[in-house]
Amino acid sequence: MFQQAHHISFDLPGWLEPYSQDYMPGTDLKSRMDFVISASRKNVEEGTGGPFAAAIFEIETGELVSLGVNLVMTQGMSFLHAEIVALAVAQRKLGCYDLGEVTATRYELLSSTEPCAMCLGAIPWSGIRQVVTAARDEDARAIGFDEGAKPENWIQSLKSRDINVLADIERESARSVLQLYNLQEGHIYNAE
Amino acid sequence: MFQQAHHISFDLPGWLEPYSQDYMPGTDLKSRMDFVISASRKNVEEGTGGPFAAAIFEIETGELVSLGVNLVMTQGMSFLHAEIVALAVAQRKLGCYDLGEVTATRYELLSSTEPCAMCLGAIPWSGIRQVVTAARDEDARAIGFDEGAKPENWIQSLKSRDINVLADIERESARSVLQLYNLQEGHIYNAE
Repeated sequence: MFQQAHHISFDLPGWLEPYSQDYMPGTDLKSRMDFVISASRKNVEEGTGGPFAAAIFEIETGELVSLGVNLVMTQGMSFLHAEIVALAVAQRKLGCYDLGEVTATRYELLSSTEPCAMCLGAIPWSGIRQVVTAARDEDARAIGFDEGAKPENWIQSLKSRDINVLADIERESARSVLQLYNLQEGHIYNAE
Repeated sequence: MFQQAHHISFDLPGWLEPYSQDYMPGTDLKSRMDFVISASRKNVEEGTGGPFAAAIFEIETGELVSLGVNLVMTQGMSFLHAEIVALAVAQRKLGCYDLGEVTATRYELLSSTEPCAMCLGAIPWSGIRQVVTAARDEDARAIGFDEGAKPENWIQSLKSRDINVLADIERESARSVLQLYNLQEGHIYNAE
């Protein structure tokens, strides 16, 4: 007899909420990105997933809405990239699948590495108004991660949907986390 | 004080498992697709989500592994497209984030409509070996759904990763479900 789960869930690492409580809301974009990159480093150090983190903030106030990290291996589902996790937590918290219509508040996604093809595709569906990235696609590819087939000029593609993009914010710092993961021989979990 | 959930979950509709128990494993691709398209219709009729369904099968035997439907509005998260739901359920069931390495068994994803940009990006990360689609991108766009910015020639792009693609299987039947949804003035939930 066919059976499948009718309840699917995943858990965020225990260190994530206490870590986030130290975040001080500010309007400085680099400080927000430092917070995200440090979370990606902590995800490696704690052994809770791949070397990626992403967070949702209120654009105007810098208030943190959600922090996600890569959970592919530890939670066993291939779509649990940091960006998807951050979106899931934010949408649950704000009670809406479209962050563009919650209130007048505008939300941004900060990602420690340029989103892969899947996460790029997920962004327009989320209601996010701004995307900010640190390490580049090529930095992830340099240590063996596959980023997928993205549309040519993904930045322009998002901008044409009124989603602003700011790239290369603290790129070197985010690259150093990817390199740390590589040095530690962290598992590169591309599908077979 | 900053707080966020550390447990995220979603539920599949109650009708889904009993519906799936009527599926008879077979090697006929059209029969498998009919099963998926009927699930997309039932998702509309039951009011449990958008007019889309997707399922994972063992390619060789036609054995059903998981059935997913679109849950964006009813479960409140923008990435809960039918394909992602089907992958989540299958990966949980088989205990691995990479369906390409579970066993020697090869898995396929059947989707009632061509995957959007996000779901296309998700496919290579899942270990799926074959993608089969019914309605086309343009059929979804015709009733107002946004499909996102896909790579040019997405079929070739998947094939270059050794993922086979079969398109237009029972297209008219799947289109009729999209048109039913449109006639019933079903909500087109593109982000604002």
